[in-house]
Amino acid sequence: MTASPSTLSRLPGTVTKRLMFLAGGTPTGLARQIADTLGVSIAPQTAHTFANGESFVRFDTSVRGSDTFVLHTATTPLNTALMEQLIMIDALKRASAKRITVIWPFYPYARQDKKHQGREPVSARLVADLLATAGADRIVAVDLHTPQAQGFFDRPVDHLLAQPLLAGYLRERYRDTTITVVAPDSGRVKLAETWAELLGGQPIAFVQHRKSLHTHHADAASLIGEVTGRLCVVVDDMIDTGATMVGAARVLLAAGATDVVAAATHAVLSDGAAGRLSHSGIREVVLTDTLPLTEDKRFPQLTVRSVAPLIASAIEAIFTDGSVTSLFDC
Amino acid sequence: MTASPSTLSRLPGTVTKRLMFLAGGTPTGLARQIADTLGVSIAPQTAHTFANGESFVRFDTSVRGSDTFVLHTATTPLNTALMEQLIMIDALKRASAKRITVIWPFYPYARQDKKHQGREPVSARLVADLLATAGADRIVAVDLHTPQAQGFFDRPVDHLLAQPLLAGYLRERYRDTTITVVAPDSGRVKLAETWAELLGGQPIAFVQHRKSLHTHHADAASLIGEVTGRLCVVVDDMIDTGATMVGAARVLLAAGATDVVAAATHAVLSDGAAGRLSHSGIREVVLTDTLPLTEDKRFPQLTVRSVAPLIASAIEAIFTDGSVTSLFDC
Amino acid sequence: MTASPSTLSRLPGTVTKRLMFLAGGTPTGLARQIADTLGVSIAPQTAHTFANGESFVRFDTSVRGSDTFVLHTATTPLNTALMEQLIMIDALKRASAKRITVIWPFYPYARQDKKHQGREPVSARLVADLLATAGADRIVAVDLHTPQAQGFFDRPVDHLLAQPLLAGYLRERYRDTTITVVAPDSGRVKLAETWAELLGGQPIAFVQHRKSLHTHHADAASLIGEVTGRLCVVVDDMIDTGATMVGAARVLLAAGATDVVAAATHAVLSDGAAGRLSHSGIREVVLTDTLPLTEDKRFPQLTVRSVAPLIASAIEAIFTDGSVTSLFDC
Amino acid sequence: MTASPSTLSRLPGTVTKRLMFLAGGTPTGLARQIADTLGVSIAPQTAHTFANGESFVRFDTSVRGSDTFVLHTATTPLNTALMEQLIMIDALKRASAKRITVIWPFYPYARQDKKHQGREPVSARLVADLLATAGADRIVAVDLHTPQAQGFFDRPVDHLLAQPLLAGYLRERYRDTTITVVAPDSGRVKLAETWAELLGGQPIAFVQHRKSLHTHHADAASLIGEVTGRLCVVVDDMIDTGATMVGAARVLLAAGATDVVAAATHAVLSDGAAGRLSHSGIREVVLTDTLPLTEDKRFPQLTVRSVAPLIASAIEAIFTDGSVTSLFDC
Amino acid sequence: MTASPSTLSRLPGTVTKRLMFLAGGTPTGLARQIADTLGVSIAPQTAHTFANGESFVRFDTSVRGSDTFVLHTATTPLNTALMEQLIMIDALKRASAKRITVIWPFYPYARQDKKHQGREPVSARLVADLLATAGADRIVAVDLHTPQAQGFFDRPVDHLLAQPLLAGYLRERYRDTTITVVAPDSGRVKLAETWAELLGGQPIAFVQHRKSLHTHHADAASLIGEVTGRLCVVVDDMIDTGATMVGAARVLLAAGATDVVAAATHAVLSDGAAGRLSHSGIREVVLTDTLPLTEDKRFPQLTVRSVAPLIASAIEAIFTDGSVTSLFDC
Amino acid sequence: MTASPSTLSRLPGTVTKRLMFLAGGTPTGLARQIADTLGVSIAPQTAHTFANGESFVRFDTSVRGSDTFVLHTATTPLNTALMEQLIMIDALKRASAKRITVIWPFYPYARQDKKHQGREPVSARLVADLLATAGADRIVAVDLHTPQAQGFFDRPVDHLLAQPLLAGYLRERYRDTTITVVAPDSGRVKLAETWAELLGGQPIAFVQHRKSLHTHHADAASLIGEVTGRLCVVVDDMIDTGATMVGAARVLLAAGATDVVAAATHAVLSDGAAGRLSHSGIREVVLTDTLPLTEDKRFPQLTVRSVAPLIASAIEAIFTDGSVTSLFDC
Repeated sequence: MTASPSTLSRLPGTVTKRLMFLAGGTPTGLARQIADTLGVSIAPQTAHTFANGESFVRFDTSVRGSDTFVLHTATTPLNTALMEQLIMIDALKRASAKRITVIWPFYPYARQDKKHQGREPVSARLVADLLATAGADRIVAVDLHTPQAQGFFDRPVDHLLAQPLLAGYLRERYRDTTITVVAPDSGRVKLAETWAELLGGQPIAFVQHRKSLHTHHADAASLIGEVTGRLCVVVDDMIDTGATMVGAARVLLAAGATDVVAAATHAVLSDGAAGRLSHSGIREVVLTDTLPLTEDKRFPQLTVRSVAPLIASAIEAIFTDGSVTSLFDC
Repeated sequence: MTASPSTLSRLPGTVTKRLMFLAGGTPTGLARQIADTLGVSIAPQTAHTFANGESFVRFDTSVRGSDTFVLHTATTPLNTALMEQLIMIDALKRASAKRITVIWPFYPYARQDKKHQGREPVSARLVADLLATAGADRIVAVDLHTPQAQGFFDRPVDHLLAQPLLAGYLRERYRDTTITVVAPDSGRVKLAETWAELLGGQPIAFVQHRKSLHTHHADAASLIGEVTGRLCVVVDDMIDTGATMVGAARVLLAAGATDVVAAATHAVLSDGAAGRLSHSGIREVVLTDTLPLTEDKRFPQLTVRSVAPLIASAIEAIFTDGSVTSLFDC
Repeated sequence: MTASPSTLSRLPGTVTKRLMFLAGGTPTGLARQIADTLGVSIAPQTAHTFANGESFVRFDTSVRGSDTFVLHTATTPLNTALMEQLIMIDALKRASAKRITVIWPFYPYARQDKKHQGREPVSARLVADLLATAGADRIVAVDLHTPQAQGFFDRPVDHLLAQPLLAGYLRERYRDTTITVVAPDSGRVKLAETWAELLGGQPIAFVQHRKSLHTHHADAASLIGEVTGRLCVVVDDMIDTGATMVGAARVLLAAGATDVVAAATHAVLSDGAAGRLSHSGIREVVLTDTLPLTEDKRFPQLTVRSVAPLIASAIEAIFTDGSVTSLFDC
Repeated sequence: MTASPSTLSRLPGTVTKRLMFLAGGTPTGLARQIADTLGVSIAPQTAHTFANGESFVRFDTSVRGSDTFVLHTATTPLNTALMEQLIMIDALKRASAKRITVIWPFYPYARQDKKHQGREPVSARLVADLLATAGADRIVAVDLHTPQAQGFFDRPVDHLLAQPLLAGYLRERYRDTTITVVAPDSGRVKLAETWAELLGGQPIAFVQHRKSLHTHHADAASLIGEVTGRLCVVVDDMIDTGATMVGAARVLLAAGATDVVAAATHAVLSDGAAGRLSHSGIREVVLTDTLPLTEDKRFPQLTVRSVAPLIASAIEAIFTDGSVTSLFDC
Repeated sequence: MTASPSTLSRLPGTVTKRLMFLAGGTPTGLARQIADTLGVSIAPQTAHTFANGESFVRFDTSVRGSDTFVLHTATTPLNTALMEQLIMIDALKRASAKRITVIWPFYPYARQDKKHQGREPVSARLVADLLATAGADRIVAVDLHTPQAQGFFDRPVDHLLAQPLLAGYLRERYRDTTITVVAPDSGRVKLAETWAELLGGQPIAFVQHRKSLHTHHADAASLIGEVTGRLCVVVDDMIDTGATMVGAARVLLAAGATDVVAAATHAVLSDGAAGRLSHSGIREVVLTDTLPLTEDKRFPQLTVRSVAPLIASAIEAIFTDGSVTSLFDC
Repeated sequence: MTASPSTLSRLPGTVTKRLMFLAGGTPTGLARQIADTLGVSIAPQTAHTFANGESFVRFDTSVRGSDTFVLHTATTPLNTALMEQLIMIDALKRASAKRITVIWPFYPYARQDKKHQGREPVSARLVADLLATAGADRIVAVDLHTPQAQGFFDRPVDHLLAQPLLAGYLRERYRDTTITVVAPDSGRVKLAETWAELLGGQPIAFVQHRKSLHTHHADAASLIGEVTGRLCVVVDDMIDTGATMVGAARVLLAAGATDVVAAATHAVLSDGAAGRLSHSGIREVVLTDTLPLTEDKRFPQLTVRSVAPLIASAIEAIFTDGSVTSLFDC
């Protein structure tokens, strides 16, 4: 076959790219703020749950060739939100999205990152594998429970840090106060050290929970470190039931702390946590909006700092191939 | 290095195998019946749901080297049951189970087996991939919505048929009655033909739903085929809201059918289906226990045939490398 | 090492893209028409078959960085054409094509989409896996035998529909005739319903093939639905030996149909189908050119509509990231 | 849940294993001989080719849990035989065979083991990947064209050597003759050296084919090495058209060789090779039955040695976990 | 084809299994002790390093069908030992070993388990992937640097704990002494808590290293917790250069500790660690033999406890499908 | 949600690309020359080896979205250099490089390309798999030991040829001399034929190494072919210890060759090769810089031709999607 060279192939000029932002379920405030900051709308979709509990989604506009960012908005039960996101990723892949970036403000199952005993799952690895199977190309996550979770995904993970954001607020707010950073248990002392640096080189203390070898129950909580006459900032990556924070506050106030402030990234706030924290004697609880803060999770002492600008900056940088390293540390 | 041959390796005699049967969540009646038929207990496990909705499971006994069979018991919301099963499979894999067979009496997301329109997921393929990712080696399923779903998994799928079970009951029950098998819509005519054969070579009819080209709404349901003076057995693979069955019954009775019996494998029965079916004029509704039939799903005209013996036979055959083909057809 | 920033990396301006169209074996008319519509030549290649039956191909021009579209032209025995295509894909992958899209006007092995009995393959899934293994990034297919085949490939599948094309022709041609759409067997009633809508909301009938439970042979074909005095359009996705169509025509004419027209997408037309159809009393047989219509497959009543414009539009849309959804339905 | 320990699991005694031998297409003499040597029948199957060229197979007996060995019998066009084997493997995998060993007496596409020029496939790697995709666990091959092909499969490859078999025959047959082993081209000198050792340390010669740099055509064949007054055994891994062997014989006889014997493993013998060899002045052509020797491939000077005992021994060793190393060399 | 049933397949009786133990490089004392405990020899192999640094290995005895356990003996440079092990695994896989279990007394690259800053590797995940690629089926590891590393491998990981072994020795040795368990930095406080429990519910202290926000250098080490008049047991998972331990000892003795004992699992002891520890004032350094303790790593205060019995028990349990859970905790 | 179309997505104009060149360890002269030719700096990185032998690397500048080329510089022990490169690839992948091309001037483990005996690894395939696992997208290699190694990687391999470079030099240098090209053993005769063509259609000779069947030791080396009074150019792909070359020279000079020149691509030159070659009577040894030529590897008769321009051209062509085929042959 003879072919004149000019017809061997077609050159349509240059390649362009297109950013699309998607969010499952009812968009949360966080989703709307990120979209606003990026100057885009949340991509419209038709989603519903079948009578027997199966989730369904269809995108109402073409995503072909787009650089897509899919936010996990945990407004529904967590497993449902997770399955919805996997289904959205499958639909994006089959609809020829060019790249699929998962935005996990809160990495689900992050705490099941190892076998604590025999015959347990490592669900934090499992969910990373499920994402990859569905078709996700990369993950953006905020303040991982353990940074090792980055290694559970074998594609790029951009690990954003919200702690500097919270620490910046506290530094400002308690500018002239003598602070001790407190880890509520031994597993969080490393985190406390990071906070201590962010707050200007403060001392640390932590609460030791001694277990009897025989009963495997915590016998007593004792305080290691100096807190008398100081403002104690108790730090954690998430507040779930609030029991840990409340217990730490009790120990600290008994030990002579002048005041207790609780700070954490993820506001799980399950099981009556709001009430528990509200009546605990804690002066202020500082959290972010990585998880939706519905009305029942709000209480007078709560301060919320938004991660929307942080996530929007990361999306912008990923889309334009800018460096994200300035946005995170580990 | 010199080694006397006798110490080069160790030969502990013969290899044995061990069957273990597992079921997530609160074991259903089906799980207990299968276990009883097999002469084993359901393997004990510690399972709970964290306050934020994350599922957890730990097996209370060693599964190392076992041939494990994991039943999906849809007692909780479907997505939660699915995630629980994935987590159980991950735990089994990490605990060195020799083989992991998933038992899906009801294949979740079976209806989303293709893109009905653009930009939709193919969730039935996705869930098969999720199973494989978690570590499942094979699937046993009952009466697949579309038999093509076998091809969504690239490992063995044993497709058990409950229709002969139901048909056997109906043949007995309506022994001397003149029967027409009715498909409630055009997509089920092939299934109706299978039933017509199982019931002894009966004629078929079906309900055509005409859609206007412009509105995309079904304008009218018309009956194709002869039903006057005959008992109509309307067949489907599942009854979800019951609306389809009730609509078909109305058309059939109006067309002169003497009586209507509804038969299907999967009792989804969501959204007030029990009440709807109960007041529809349908004489008898015959279903199986592939899905749990809680009290709110029961009604006077309901007959339930158990698939427990069928599933137990399949597990037995798989465990002993017997032929399963005699248990299924396609 | 110190490096002046300007030399850290090279920025050659913008990324461009290049479309290349390839076709195995002797290019068919369809291949040439698609190339003409796209305004490109079929990429030149050196191909031959070794004496022992092994296929060989080498591209005569660089494909590096190109967006390549490889048409499967079933001009040779099907398995040979399939192996040739796999080998072409391997060569494209190793020659650094940027993206490899497979064009399957006729999806090979589409009918083996499930185990009809035990110990059968699911070849339709297998060939999708073989494509992926060789290096295919996506598939474009026309009128799949079962739409579930989309789920056999875990990358994008663009499912083009030729039925509207054929239906448009028939609507025009038999404008003032009273039509019934007929499914030649129970498995095609759903397809008949789709056609009935495309033809303006027509009634449906179908041919039931009753099998004896004991002999497993079809005893008799009976007609379900009304056809007296009407033009019957018998529809299928493909015509292979033509026996099904001819049998349906016989039943319909015996039942009082005024005329019979056969319509299908894929002209397999094997085994003397042309002669069989020509002498069947069928008034017109309408097909497309998804398969090559060699001289021995042509006969007086045959009408052929080309899918070349449809496929060329899909390639154009994929290349330019336009929406393909407007070109297909399910 | 309380469970008496005895019911926690089932122990059915010991694990047994079962050997099954399968062969695609019409079984060749080789297949029958292997089966006889093993003392088994070829597993019965239903196979046919659809009118449009698609292959189909169904096994007529259960293969569940079996250790299966699938012979590739190249009785049909090579690509068809290859696709048939892939389909058989898929069916075995889905029918729960315990292990699937592919027997390739002749490794198809072995010669396309590298890109000879740019934009070529590496089909020998591709077919190994296709096998793995279909579900093959291991390959047994005889006298690979290049031993590197072992590395194309990332699972076990047992490489059987038929050369010692052929050399043993020749040593016996030409016991008191002065022999030179001849490589018909530069790429086979290494092979000639192996043969020279097997024949008792004989000298080697080879035919150099000089290509002009400009025309890329072979200008002339010249002989490197001493052959006057000696019996020349020209060796290769396969004889395809026979042209290479015939050309070498002409050069050798012209250079004073007393006689020429051709020896190779694979009897491709395409394209009138039998006639060509028969009239070439070659005294004897020694081959094996790795490929079927149909009547048109036989001629007076042909001697055939069967590899059936070699392959049967390998299957026996694999099945019983014996060492295969004694059966092969590289 | 008719086949008398008895010849359809071969049943050779029961399946047996065979344990083989392999160790790369020059077998260490640990390797020999494990072999002795198991009652086997280390499988003989031919291994050498080519002049250009490439490693080579060949097994001198058949491994076909064996249950193989490959110990990583870090007697050579770490990367060489790692490549050697990957090559051994590849050879085992290709030689048809039935199962390949990697024994990593010291998990290489365990410390690079996350990106500490941007653009770093996660080498601990990488090496797990390399193992899987080579063909490893499972890992046995001792005292992982972070237990999350279990999740880096998606097949079974048996995590053995040597800490109880060391703690048992110390409990005995310092029976009537008042002990404080000390973490040498904030990241090891969780580990210290585990030790505190193993030693009978002791109090904890730790050394805080404050970094200036600007210089990123540790400014000063301060002690958090009470140590005056107590025996301090400083714990870590490994001792590398010893600098951390020596620094902690200095702080503790300055703070009034009566004595300091250092305890860790992995004796990396690089870079003059032996001398540094010997002259540090530390009373006793307790380590295990997970890494070879060559002469230059020994010093008077060193006590070594062997993990050979622990590893041998794990191999035994894995081989016989016993529970390993009793051998480990997390 | 209503979205004005203009905000549905963001279009930032065109896509640009960026070339980055990386080299592990201390950059060699080759690395610097390639960088200079490309007009870029070697990307700065922080790399070191931990006391226990673990390698570490961090890139000092963003690589996000870059087209990266990673040179393997074998300046350190080979296994260390290989692990370093795998770690660099992992870091590039996790830092979101757009494409990762591995530059292997010398393909490590190329000689272990098959099992020479039973129970050996195929390390050349293994290292290709390790690259793919770490995240490499393509390989550029120079003069592969066996071209089949291309098939060990299932992504693009650009095989550059340095032989024309060396041959061009020799053609010029020995313009009016009568040349015979000599293969030092039977496995290199094919290579000698290629060289014979590059040098203008010269005759070939080779050295046969006869092994006794019983001792498996080479008994004697004899020369096949004519060399009296001619300049012998002995060719190989690499010179390792030099023993093969020196042995060949001895045989050739004894057979009457006027002079011997050795030519090869890869200067492994291990184990005193420089001295051995220098005192061998070989007139000139022509090599390239694919491996670093440290001072101890240099000797008077050595001539080195650089492959830097060749590699730089390949990188340029890959980056700009130009054809590389003109740079290589097979």
